[in-house]
Amino acid sequence: MAEPTTEQEDKRQRRSRKGEERRVQILAATMRRFAEDGYQNAAIGDIARDVGLSLPGLLHHFPTKVDLLLAILAKRDLDSADFISHYRSDLRGLLKGMVEIFRHNAGMIEVVRAFAILNAESLMKDHPAKTWFLDRTVQMQNDIAATFERAIADGSIDGGIDAPAMAAELIAIMDGLQMLWLRDPNRFDMVGGLEAYVSRLLTSLGLQG
Amino acid sequence: MAEPTTEQEDKRQRRSRKGEERRVQILAATMRRFAEDGYQNAAIGDIARDVGLSLPGLLHHFPTKVDLLLAILAKRDLDSADFISHYRSDLRGLLKGMVEIFRHNAGMIEVVRAFAILNAESLMKDHPAKTWFLDRTVQMQNDIAATFERAIADGSIDGGIDAPAMAAELIAIMDGLQMLWLRDPNRFDMVGGLEAYVSRLLTSLGLQG
Repeated sequence: MAEPTTEQEDKRQRRSRKGEERRVQILAATMRRFAEDGYQNAAIGDIARDVGLSLPGLLHHFPTKVDLLLAILAKRDLDSADFISHYRSDLRGLLKGMVEIFRHNAGMIEVVRAFAILNAESLMKDHPAKTWFLDRTVQMQNDIAATFERAIADGSIDGGIDAPAMAAELIAIMDGLQMLWLRDPNRFDMVGGLEAYVSRLLTSLGLQG
Repeated sequence: MAEPTTEQEDKRQRRSRKGEERRVQILAATMRRFAEDGYQNAAIGDIARDVGLSLPGLLHHFPTKVDLLLAILAKRDLDSADFISHYRSDLRGLLKGMVEIFRHNAGMIEVVRAFAILNAESLMKDHPAKTWFLDRTVQMQNDIAATFERAIADGSIDGGIDAPAMAAELIAIMDGLQMLWLRDPNRFDMVGGLEAYVSRLLTSLGLQG
C-alpha cells in the first residue's frame, strides 16, 4: 500500500477530530437524556435530534443504546479509578479525598443524577448495566478496604475494625447522601453531610486533628 | 330507600370481601412487577395476567397505573409511620429500632427492591411519585430530628449536634446500605452494616452500653 500523502493524512486527522467532537457532543446529550428519563425510557431518536443528527447519523457513531450506556459508564469509571488510585495509600487522605470528590460533583448535578438513576435502575432484572455496577462496587469496596487494612497493619487504627464492612459503609453513605441531594439540593447538603460523617469517623478511628 | 334485607347485606359483604382479596392479590403482583421492571417499564397488562384478570377487570379495581403506584406507596408509608411513632420518644430506642426494621425487611427482598427502584426512579423528571418521595423524606427527617432535639434538650447528648443533618445522615445510610444489599445480598449484609454504624454512633453520642 502506498504511503498516504501529507494532504490525505491531514484530511484523515481532521475527519477523526471531527468524529471525536461529535462523540463528545453525543455523550453530553445522552447524559442529559439519561438524567431526565433514565436509561430505559430515554429515546435514542431524541438524543440524535438534540445534537442535530439523523438517527442513522447517530447510529454510525454508536450502533445501539447499550453502546451509549457503556460509553457513559466508561467515562465515569475513569474518574473513580483516578480518585481511588490517587488516595489509596493513606486512610486519612482517602476520607478527606471523598469529600473533595463530592465538592467537585456538586458542580455537575445532571451528571450525578444520570449516574444515580442508572445505578438504581441497574437493580432491575436483566438491566444491561447490572454487571458493570456490581463489578465497580466490588472494586471500590476492595480498594477502600485495602486502605483500611494497611492502616490496621501499620498500627494507625484499631485491629478490631472490619475493613470490608467499613468500605461498604462508606460507599453506602456516599450513595445515600447523593440521592438526598438529588431529591432536593436546597434542602440536603451532600458535601456538608459527608464532611460531618467523615469528621466523626476520623475521631472514632483516632485519626482526627 | 328501603333498608337492605339481611340476605342483600350478606351478599354485599361477601362481594366487598372478595373485592378486598382481589385488591391484595393485584397489589402483590404489582409489587413483583415493579421490583423486576420498575414503575416506568411495568406493563399493566402483565399485572392483570399475573392475577388471572382481563385488562378491563383490573382497571375496574385500579383505573390507571398511577393508582397502582399510589396504593403501593400508601401501604409502605403506613409501615414507616408506625415505626417512627413507635420509637420517636427515645433516641437510643429509635436507633436500635432502625436495625430491627432492617432485620424485618431482610425477609422481603422483593418489596424492598420495588421500593428502592421507585425511590430512585422518582428522581427522574415528571415522575408521578416525585412529590410523594420528597414529602416522605422530609417527614422522616423532621421526625428523626425531633428525637435528636429532645435528647439535646434533656441533656442526654451534646448540644452541638446538628439534628436535621444527623437525621439526613441516618436516612442516607439506610438507603445506601439497602442498595448495596439489593445489588448482592450474599456479599453485602445490610443488617450487620447498620448495626455496626449505629453502635459506633451510639458510642460517639455517649449513649452506648
